[in-house]
Amino acid sequence: MQQYDVVGIGNAIVDIIGRCDEAFLTKHGCAKGSMQLVDAAAVAKLYGDMGPAVEISGGSGANTIVGVASFGGKAGFIGKTANDQFGEVFGHDIRTAGVTFKTPAAPKGSEPTGRCLVLVTPDGQRTMNTFLGVSPQLGGGEVDADLVASARIVYLEGYLFDRPEAKAAFRQAANIAAKAGRQVALSLSDSFCVDRHRAEFLDLIRSSIDILFANEAEITSLYETKSFDEAARRAAADTKLAALTRSEKGSVILGGGKSIAIPAASVAKVVDTTGAGDLYAAGFLFGIATGRDLETSGRLGSLAAAEIISHIGARPETKLQDLARAKGLLA
Amino acid sequence: MQQYDVVGIGNAIVDIIGRCDEAFLTKHGCAKGSMQLVDAAAVAKLYGDMGPAVEISGGSGANTIVGVASFGGKAGFIGKTANDQFGEVFGHDIRTAGVTFKTPAAPKGSEPTGRCLVLVTPDGQRTMNTFLGVSPQLGGGEVDADLVASARIVYLEGYLFDRPEAKAAFRQAANIAAKAGRQVALSLSDSFCVDRHRAEFLDLIRSSIDILFANEAEITSLYETKSFDEAARRAAADTKLAALTRSEKGSVILGGGKSIAIPAASVAKVVDTTGAGDLYAAGFLFGIATGRDLETSGRLGSLAAAEIISHIGARPETKLQDLARAKGLLA
Repeated sequence: MQQYDVVGIGNAIVDIIGRCDEAFLTKHGCAKGSMQLVDAAAVAKLYGDMGPAVEISGGSGANTIVGVASFGGKAGFIGKTANDQFGEVFGHDIRTAGVTFKTPAAPKGSEPTGRCLVLVTPDGQRTMNTFLGVSPQLGGGEVDADLVASARIVYLEGYLFDRPEAKAAFRQAANIAAKAGRQVALSLSDSFCVDRHRAEFLDLIRSSIDILFANEAEITSLYETKSFDEAARRAAADTKLAALTRSEKGSVILGGGKSIAIPAASVAKVVDTTGAGDLYAAGFLFGIATGRDLETSGRLGSLAAAEIISHIGARPETKLQDLARAKGLLA
Repeated sequence: MQQYDVVGIGNAIVDIIGRCDEAFLTKHGCAKGSMQLVDAAAVAKLYGDMGPAVEISGGSGANTIVGVASFGGKAGFIGKTANDQFGEVFGHDIRTAGVTFKTPAAPKGSEPTGRCLVLVTPDGQRTMNTFLGVSPQLGGGEVDADLVASARIVYLEGYLFDRPEAKAAFRQAANIAAKAGRQVALSLSDSFCVDRHRAEFLDLIRSSIDILFANEAEITSLYETKSFDEAARRAAADTKLAALTRSEKGSVILGGGKSIAIPAASVAKVVDTTGAGDLYAAGFLFGIATGRDLETSGRLGSLAAAEIISHIGARPETKLQDLARAKGLLA
């Protein structure tokens, strides 16, 4: 059986990215920087109100997996699309990025492929409204057991917890990975998502997760504290390995009894923060899966995050392997 | 009746833009810098071979009309989409850019919305493979006579000549405009398109066109000469007003017995030339429709072309009215 570095499970989403001002967010009741789930009617209304946009494949876990492939890692993805144009776009973009993606599209007549309206304010911050469409219909039975069992690390997107069917797929993948002796990584995805599923997340992290990703808002939400330091201490106690990202303050890696601070990589101009956390996870997971040390893995994460926020969209425009080589982080 | 500055008729297309190297063009038999029409099977094959892409609304005439609106002009567009996701994207983007767009989408089950695979080489040059889909099914009967008659300038995309049904719409619009005493503008679109329809284009230009747009390759193809100067002399004899674009050499405007050379506006880095000619036409048409002189109109064209080649896609990322005000070209 072929060995994969990282296999991810997440929502299959096409991002529809447009610019707006702060007043637009207020008017539409969007909490700046967050992701909120919306239904078909709400997404249609918001789309009608927002300005011209561009479409780029997205999905938090899918962005991470494409990042792993861009570093030269062997990567696979499991996620549900519909048999429609956005599904075709999602499948094309992830496959031609070098990722193994074989989940069959839902038959014609299903709900449409998931989409996310990404509103980017002048400061580069992104605010997301997601219509999941067919994406949560990924059931436990659709998890490719061979693919999951062959991965050094199985990466689970926290957003999957928002729907029971997707949660079943999530648990199924975690069980297969555990049986195969693989590492299981989890991203907390969003502070509101943490708020919706706090007890379950804590239980899962303590019982089944080897590598935890969270940003400052997510980890403080998880432990219901305002103190990042306190949240970090508790994360260190609950996990084998945690990577906590702090935007321009870089990240903190907690593992083996140590705390390692990694600086953020420099960016000329922050254009669009969409995917910053996803791509940090890509670099870190690629590093760990290929046997690099914690500091190098963290630096690969910072590098990938810096690339992604320098342009519109959450898929790399420059091959991350080349960037990492230029910085001396990869041979 | 409300007065429009410019109403355009053209193919309704979503661009699928990806990067490739020169070898990819050679391997797939694409003539660099050109547009070729492909069928559904060929577009699917090429899409499968090209790398990850982004989707941005396009269509030559539609890009021009969006540019006119971005300058603050009152603009309308007539073009055919399908009732699918790309059709929704096209309609959203053009309407929220401030353009009146009321052509009904074809009913479900029609051919899909047109798409164009735009391959951008490292030098920024774009090579296009277009699957027109439902777009040419815009018939003469679907031309909104009131909208066309209300426009100071009616702008026709040369690419429409590639299909008989669309050509009927083209001629219908030209007739309505002539009866209403409006100016009719034509873009030659592409040198291969000129080659396909030379005699008809010449006849149309001499009989019905007030403003002609062409680049160097198109105008020399039209007059079957290698000399730009000779082609320009013949264009001056055949038209009331012609704007001939020459990439980094700027443009030449021929009208009222004069020849005015307009320099290209400066660009820090040419990222993607898609839409350069379309946006030049936008600035020039906006200028003429709002009563500005030829030189100012040409400079507005150069400014818009420079904005569009500084980023991916053929729709402005910065409001052209603001750019023109900053340059002192608009009050």
